Amino acid sequence: MPNPTAAMLVIGDEILSGRTRDANMHHLAGQLTEAGITLAEVRVVSDDHDAIVRALNDLRDTWDTVFTSGGIGPTHDDITADAVADAFDAHIDVRDDARALLAAHYARTGAELNAARLRMARIPEGATLIDNPVSIAPGFSIGNVHVMAGVPSVFQAMVATVLPTLTGGEPMLSTSTRIDRGEGDIAGPLGILAQDYADLSVGSYPFQKDGKFGSNIVIRGQDRARLEEATARLATLLG
Amino acid sequence: MPNPTAAMLVIGDEILSGRTRDANMHHLAGQLTEAGITLAEVRVVSDDHDAIVRALNDLRDTWDTVFTSGGIGPTHDDITADAVADAFDAHIDVRDDARALLAAHYARTGAELNAARLRMARIPEGATLIDNPVSIAPGFSIGNVHVMAGVPSVFQAMVATVLPTLTGGEPMLSTSTRIDRGEGDIAGPLGILAQDYADLSVGSYPFQKDGKFGSNIVIRGQDRARLEEATARLATLLG
Repeated sequence: MPNPTAAMLVIGDEILSGRTRDANMHHLAGQLTEAGITLAEVRVVSDDHDAIVRALNDLRDTWDTVFTSGGIGPTHDDITADAVADAFDAHIDVRDDARALLAAHYARTGAELNAARLRMARIPEGATLIDNPVSIAPGFSIGNVHVMAGVPSVFQAMVATVLPTLTGGEPMLSTSTRIDRGEGDIAGPLGILAQDYADLSVGSYPFQKDGKFGSNIVIRGQDRARLEEATARLATLLG
Repeated sequence: MPNPTAAMLVIGDEILSGRTRDANMHHLAGQLTEAGITLAEVRVVSDDHDAIVRALNDLRDTWDTVFTSGGIGPTHDDITADAVADAFDAHIDVRDDARALLAAHYARTGAELNAARLRMARIPEGATLIDNPVSIAPGFSIGNVHVMAGVPSVFQAMVATVLPTLTGGEPMLSTSTRIDRGEGDIAGPLGILAQDYADLSVGSYPFQKDGKFGSNIVIRGQDRARLEEATARLATLLG
């Protein structure tokens, strides 16, 4: 049976403007691969209500699970929760369970639970909260969508909470072999390998270093013995 | 007049599996911002023909210009050129101009222009070649789509070739102000600023460092005087 699939929706002008380099995609990709879930698509859209709704509806209809990152803080440009509610046609308002989490937290820290912070308790009807051990303001899951913060430490904590609740597949295993020859020299044998091991995925990821070209050949699959056989065959084919 | 828009399509299982961290998105984002072109959306899809065709058609219908990255090398998993041709319903085969570039290059280096390398001369009918000063095998432009290599050094060289041919807008200027207070404390005044300067974009990008929360407030716009006024107002509002 093929592994379950996932998509990620990154919400953030700061990535698209080149101001910030996204870190969450790479983290989630690695975590999903370990869990045997195939990250099939990522989209990055701007802090725009319609763009978020459109992308989210597209992704949640296409893939088993969707993770979003960004836009659930207290400032005016944090519009993800409302956009997600709109995508699901769900009512959204400050919810008592989320408000209680924030109230307890700010009572402890002495900060005021002002109108801005209360925005972080806006949770769509029917959603369940995702624990945020770092800064308390929760994420939430609704349908097959998990809505998480963009700050990497918070995002990672939320991924750690959500992942064990998902049904994973067989973990995807891989071997990586570095070949210090240009892809043009190895493409022939590599194509034969890919055909002979059509149950595995054989990828060639070229690099350029110190003016020389080479490639990392990554073979992926779920059957360790078969993977080792293909990797040994690669060594034979490429001498 | 609003600036022209662009999208990016990253093609690569290696990004989605978490094996490689994408570098091209961040580079392109910065270059486009400087050129006054708004990067509005990025998608990352796997090395899958139908996924590439679908995403490309969606993006080129929606945005002014599309840049793709990855999948134009000589190996069996390099399927971007054929997918792009399919998306445009264009005939694709080895083209004489691209073959001539490769033939001259390999004659110089002594490598063989074998069947695998010839695949890199497969160019859709009607496309124009994008110069590749790093490793010769060209990218190509067809319609509003620019098809470029995934290897960062080659990608960057191709961006440098293509960008001057595009009509840019007014460069987007920005100021960044670091505030060492949690977003919840500054969200109120920030919302007022965003309302008062609705012609600018005011973004709050929270961070967590050494257990403390803070935020970088980024104000963006094309009118320097207006931008400086808003930035001064921010300083006044937040003390």
